Amino acid sequence: MLLEKLVDLALEEDIGPGDITTLACVPAHLEGGARIVTRQDLVLAGQEVAEAVFRARGSKYRACAADGDNLGVGSTVGEITGPLRSILMTERVALNFLMELSGIASTTRLHVEAAAGAFAVVDTRKTTPLHRSLQKAAVRAGGARNHRFSLFDGVLVKDNHIRAVGSITEAVHRVRSRAHHLMRIQVEVRNVAEGREALAAGADALLLDNMGTSALRHALAVFKGKVLLEASGNMTPERLAMLASTGPRPDLVSVGGLVHQARWVDLSLELTAVP
Amino acid sequence: MLLEKLVDLALEEDIGPGDITTLACVPAHLEGGARIVTRQDLVLAGQEVAEAVFRARGSKYRACAADGDNLGVGSTVGEITGPLRSILMTERVALNFLMELSGIASTTRLHVEAAAGAFAVVDTRKTTPLHRSLQKAAVRAGGARNHRFSLFDGVLVKDNHIRAVGSITEAVHRVRSRAHHLMRIQVEVRNVAEGREALAAGADALLLDNMGTSALRHALAVFKGKVLLEASGNMTPERLAMLASTGPRPDLVSVGGLVHQARWVDLSLELTAVP
Amino acid sequence: MLLEKLVDLALEEDIGPGDITTLACVPAHLEGGARIVTRQDLVLAGQEVAEAVFRARGSKYRACAADGDNLGVGSTVGEITGPLRSILMTERVALNFLMELSGIASTTRLHVEAAAGAFAVVDTRKTTPLHRSLQKAAVRAGGARNHRFSLFDGVLVKDNHIRAVGSITEAVHRVRSRAHHLMRIQVEVRNVAEGREALAAGADALLLDNMGTSALRHALAVFKGKVLLEASGNMTPERLAMLASTGPRPDLVSVGGLVHQARWVDLSLELTAVP
Amino acid sequence: MLLEKLVDLALEEDIGPGDITTLACVPAHLEGGARIVTRQDLVLAGQEVAEAVFRARGSKYRACAADGDNLGVGSTVGEITGPLRSILMTERVALNFLMELSGIASTTRLHVEAAAGAFAVVDTRKTTPLHRSLQKAAVRAGGARNHRFSLFDGVLVKDNHIRAVGSITEAVHRVRSRAHHLMRIQVEVRNVAEGREALAAGADALLLDNMGTSALRHALAVFKGKVLLEASGNMTPERLAMLASTGPRPDLVSVGGLVHQARWVDLSLELTAVP
Amino acid sequence: MLLEKLVDLALEEDIGPGDITTLACVPAHLEGGARIVTRQDLVLAGQEVAEAVFRARGSKYRACAADGDNLGVGSTVGEITGPLRSILMTERVALNFLMELSGIASTTRLHVEAAAGAFAVVDTRKTTPLHRSLQKAAVRAGGARNHRFSLFDGVLVKDNHIRAVGSITEAVHRVRSRAHHLMRIQVEVRNVAEGREALAAGADALLLDNMGTSALRHALAVFKGKVLLEASGNMTPERLAMLASTGPRPDLVSVGGLVHQARWVDLSLELTAVP
Amino acid sequence: MLLEKLVDLALEEDIGPGDITTLACVPAHLEGGARIVTRQDLVLAGQEVAEAVFRARGSKYRACAADGDNLGVGSTVGEITGPLRSILMTERVALNFLMELSGIASTTRLHVEAAAGAFAVVDTRKTTPLHRSLQKAAVRAGGARNHRFSLFDGVLVKDNHIRAVGSITEAVHRVRSRAHHLMRIQVEVRNVAEGREALAAGADALLLDNMGTSALRHALAVFKGKVLLEASGNMTPERLAMLASTGPRPDLVSVGGLVHQARWVDLSLELTAVP
Repeated sequence: MLLEKLVDLALEEDIGPGDITTLACVPAHLEGGARIVTRQDLVLAGQEVAEAVFRARGSKYRACAADGDNLGVGSTVGEITGPLRSILMTERVALNFLMELSGIASTTRLHVEAAAGAFAVVDTRKTTPLHRSLQKAAVRAGGARNHRFSLFDGVLVKDNHIRAVGSITEAVHRVRSRAHHLMRIQVEVRNVAEGREALAAGADALLLDNMGTSALRHALAVFKGKVLLEASGNMTPERLAMLASTGPRPDLVSVGGLVHQARWVDLSLELTAVP
Repeated sequence: MLLEKLVDLALEEDIGPGDITTLACVPAHLEGGARIVTRQDLVLAGQEVAEAVFRARGSKYRACAADGDNLGVGSTVGEITGPLRSILMTERVALNFLMELSGIASTTRLHVEAAAGAFAVVDTRKTTPLHRSLQKAAVRAGGARNHRFSLFDGVLVKDNHIRAVGSITEAVHRVRSRAHHLMRIQVEVRNVAEGREALAAGADALLLDNMGTSALRHALAVFKGKVLLEASGNMTPERLAMLASTGPRPDLVSVGGLVHQARWVDLSLELTAVP
Repeated sequence: MLLEKLVDLALEEDIGPGDITTLACVPAHLEGGARIVTRQDLVLAGQEVAEAVFRARGSKYRACAADGDNLGVGSTVGEITGPLRSILMTERVALNFLMELSGIASTTRLHVEAAAGAFAVVDTRKTTPLHRSLQKAAVRAGGARNHRFSLFDGVLVKDNHIRAVGSITEAVHRVRSRAHHLMRIQVEVRNVAEGREALAAGADALLLDNMGTSALRHALAVFKGKVLLEASGNMTPERLAMLASTGPRPDLVSVGGLVHQARWVDLSLELTAVP
Repeated sequence: MLLEKLVDLALEEDIGPGDITTLACVPAHLEGGARIVTRQDLVLAGQEVAEAVFRARGSKYRACAADGDNLGVGSTVGEITGPLRSILMTERVALNFLMELSGIASTTRLHVEAAAGAFAVVDTRKTTPLHRSLQKAAVRAGGARNHRFSLFDGVLVKDNHIRAVGSITEAVHRVRSRAHHLMRIQVEVRNVAEGREALAAGADALLLDNMGTSALRHALAVFKGKVLLEASGNMTPERLAMLASTGPRPDLVSVGGLVHQARWVDLSLELTAVP
Repeated sequence: MLLEKLVDLALEEDIGPGDITTLACVPAHLEGGARIVTRQDLVLAGQEVAEAVFRARGSKYRACAADGDNLGVGSTVGEITGPLRSILMTERVALNFLMELSGIASTTRLHVEAAAGAFAVVDTRKTTPLHRSLQKAAVRAGGARNHRFSLFDGVLVKDNHIRAVGSITEAVHRVRSRAHHLMRIQVEVRNVAEGREALAAGADALLLDNMGTSALRHALAVFKGKVLLEASGNMTPERLAMLASTGPRPDLVSVGGLVHQARWVDLSLELTAVP
Repeated sequence: MLLEKLVDLALEEDIGPGDITTLACVPAHLEGGARIVTRQDLVLAGQEVAEAVFRARGSKYRACAADGDNLGVGSTVGEITGPLRSILMTERVALNFLMELSGIASTTRLHVEAAAGAFAVVDTRKTTPLHRSLQKAAVRAGGARNHRFSLFDGVLVKDNHIRAVGSITEAVHRVRSRAHHLMRIQVEVRNVAEGREALAAGADALLLDNMGTSALRHALAVFKGKVLLEASGNMTPERLAMLASTGPRPDLVSVGGLVHQARWVDLSLELTAVP
């Protein structure tokens, strides 16, 4: 979904047939100014969608910081000028996006710092429906990388596929003959034996999901250097720090919590100019 | 936005032109069965949207619990039957909705229990864009009540409106002459003097926002019984418990954190039948 | 539905894949000018949608009068400049909106004048599907007020709800526990006894629908001052004048006929400049 | 626009995010029955859209009369069965369509009877935006015929086209070379001289618009039998009767008032079965 | 479907959630320039849609030739300036449209030249779904004319209609009483006897479909001058030349192959300015 | 775009507000039957979209052959039953899809047979806008494989990206740091030197585009076995056969002509049952 369409639907949700308070109080011709300020320390994300929200109803948004910036409390995120009615009617939607996405960027930053460069931190498909593109950008703003976007742009053979097909080998062969030649094939495995079968079948990457720490270390030791290795499952900054502290290390660790354990940060909009 | 359209957009986001792994591995004619189980204690929400997700691609969903139910770890949330391809392609979207919404219901329940019936706990317009209708239902599932849905179905005169108009009195008069006769008018006030002006102008309800505890107690004492009183601002279960413990008490306390401080709960889908 | 989308659909309806006469006769580069003139006395409404229609295909519309203005025959409503093709292809849709909406404003004015300020005249939900927002604005242009916009922004308990629930009391209690705190509750009653039950249950307003004149007078006398009172049912300017002439008077009278008994007024578009 | 989409938009307009009264009062599992009855004599139109409205939310509609039927007061138009919630939430939209369209059919019938078969009565493009397809069907239900549907499916060279091109002859030649071979070309003329030019240029039909009675009679006498003749302009049943009473007569008379001077008829929905 | 919507859908198809190569390689602020050049001789079509494609993502397109122009190999079709990202992301869609449509215009030109003005060459409804409007414009660019656009703007009674109704006579009468007065009626006939029945019933045009050459010549001789005559069925430039060479000739020959036997021409986009 | 939406838009294009011939001739209650038969030898494709077209208006389609089948002239492709009106109104759209797509499958089959298994034949992004998903399925039905679907699901660094970035090395590095780990990176190169740079930078695949035969052979010899090799540019069945006949051979050859040089095959619909 194009950003403009997402923004239109979001404004329609919040405004409905009209903002009765604002239409009654504020004359159509009044112009105004406002700024968005932080009420806590945070990593910023969402500037593009905020700009689109204000623009959709005829205001102008000037970003005063960039996605990925560390901002202290009291910082100015952006400045808005335009019809006062427009500013008051779009304020909530713009803030909702910025607060959600900066929350994700801030949470992501904590994880990335815990990993200390020992491996890539990546997100998952556990994202809020219709917000995936924005949330994946927020993850990048926080310093992590993205996993595949959807079921369409990457192959990941999971336990349910393997059960449906009968074996890892058969699953990998089927995908190889159907996916285009620019796709690598990753297989989710539960133990070293499955990992060996996947490798023999031609897998390019393994997903070591929900393994205990010692089983994970063992699997990493067996496969390190032979294939791309991704670890996953209940990853917190603490667990990332532990994994980063000593080898063998995975190439990537995927963390659903970058998105789904993030809480919104606190921002507010203040009128700076009222006629 | 109708639920069916929301679901279509969400599936389009996750599936794109096609789930290459599933289409390659799983033949079109295979039927399957699955169930969704809890991996932690939670308050359930989202059964209607989960049902719509599975139905949208030709599977059937049988709910095994109702929105608002307290479920222990290992409980069955629902059972799915249908084409195996369909189940595997819709699983993630259905789980994403259920995990998000049950997280909100669970967080809400904590707040409602803290309030102990001393006042109504209500939500705010700080909701995830395009998820408002679902999130407000999750808030109800958690036992709280809803504030107005949007800028259209309720009048709330805020500080920015008052600044634009010049005075509380003028703002209330303008809204009264424009809004239909079934609308009550609520005014956000910062102190007792503003509250008195709002009352004199004909306001039906006051919003006491972001007041310190003693200022809030004072305002509640002044206006109790004369007008509907809503308190708001940084409300946690602890603060709700304190407000509930001794009078005077507001009629309602609105808590943005029911939604924006909630984290997703953990659920998983397990295949129960593979041909 | 946003005004721009409504206008796009309306133009698509009238133009389809293309206006064959205009495309054949008028070269693409020709610019033109036109004006819209009244062919009868009227109260104007629809300037915003007219502007949007001409703009949608690249012309400019300058309003020469405002919604709510009384215009005599031969007055100029607005002036259009732009590509001649565009003017000729949008003329009919713009006129259709203006003629319909000015008809409603003109009919409304007659009713408002008959009421002579003795009570508010309000509209109903008997509006042309997809035209509600425009028609309610036309009603305001005519000097009347709006009732609730839809089933969503106001509570009106009608006979069918009462029958489904079993009693007025039960219906009011159910709605009170579900609707947000800024909603007043109105109940449709057929006689004084029902009105008393509604009041006791906590209703904020009564709808006295389709009562004969003496029954209506009696009910007004009983409830005057205790609750908001709306009368309705077959209201003509004559009946409004009678109701207005002597007390007790209702607070509001709702009149479906503001919209559904209005006829279009007559307007025409004249080319003022052809190259 | 497909009927289903029109109906969805209409229901969205009236219901918004939800019918709060009905959702609060009526449990989801209750089934109900209802019927629509006439409260005045009328010619019926709109059965297809009424059926689509009730079906869109899960009820069934059984038509008890057909479009074009003359119904006396108290007649049953159709019967509805389904979830009581669904019936109460769709009632208003279904009635609005039926009342509007039956109003058009009834008005049309008066005109057709006045014409007494002396010429065809046809509609115009002065129809309510987004309702054209329904209103043209209502016109047929009333016994009249349709003119072209849109700017796309018929050629009508009007005064503004002629001004843009310079002459009737040039306009007709341009259209002939661009329109497909199954299109007849009609030209609007103001007098006999223009009619002669149009004929010489190859026009298949003339539109004699807004002529006084004697000028119209003269033009009819001159062109009768040589080309299709349509008269138009301020046509009432009285004027149609006069035109029909004595020759020469036009082949068709187009009447915008079939639609834009029609008022809604009165219908109501009564619950017949409540659990 | 409006051109802008078609273009949006086409870009969405090719770009999806984002062009990963371009977003990774090309910084957002880079501006660029490019031109489209022919790699073979061709008749040009598609300039309007090409312009809309580049505009949809913020570039500017300057057409250097007009639809219908004969261009030799190496000619410049148009020049693009704008953000380099935008140019690279829209290039393929713009070229796909231009190559398809210029292929149709080029193929059409061959047929028109074969007909040598002896009759009109027209297209059919055998067009690529969703491309009809563009393809019919390409046919005009190639020098041929259009048949009816759709099932809505022209009447063509085909064998299947006749079978359903029982006779040609009955079919023509039914259509005459339902279609508006600006529609001519064409009937598909298989032999002279059927043509005579159609004429007697009032048909305005005959379609002589899939007749052998001698049968066709005979039918043309019988009906020439009495009714519009269209021939159709497996028409190649060779067969058109033969039909054109000697009388009696049809008024029109419709050729599905103008569209469905056309192959794309070869065009390429070259960057002219890279920062 | 979902198949159902594509089909709705296609039917809307062909039917508009209604099929006047069919609505006039064929009563609503008539049921009918029909079959689609081949009028030439072909490889079939498009059964899924044909089924969706007939279903969209209430008919049933039973496929009598599968995509990829070789069918001789006179074979039955599928059988339709349903309302006769529905069959006649959807016939053209269903046939247009089947004729287009079977043309592509048939053309593809010729190329695949010429390659004789020496390398994979794959398609390109030169597809008809809005038909990509269908055309890529037709390519598979013809026995070839698909390249990436869009700019989103595969990385291909082309000459224009390289020019914008400055070097192959820089381009590959930028993409590697931005694309997810399941993406292989392919680089378009013009000669062996560029190929060596791409390999050194970490490219997984090379695209040898528009090379002359001897240059291509040389490049294949240099890189064979070191990296995935795709050849492209003006590939005909003859050239494929030549490339296949002697080594070194590429891994894949991409052929735009599978789609853009394909012509429609000939199919017809015959009524089998008319009441």
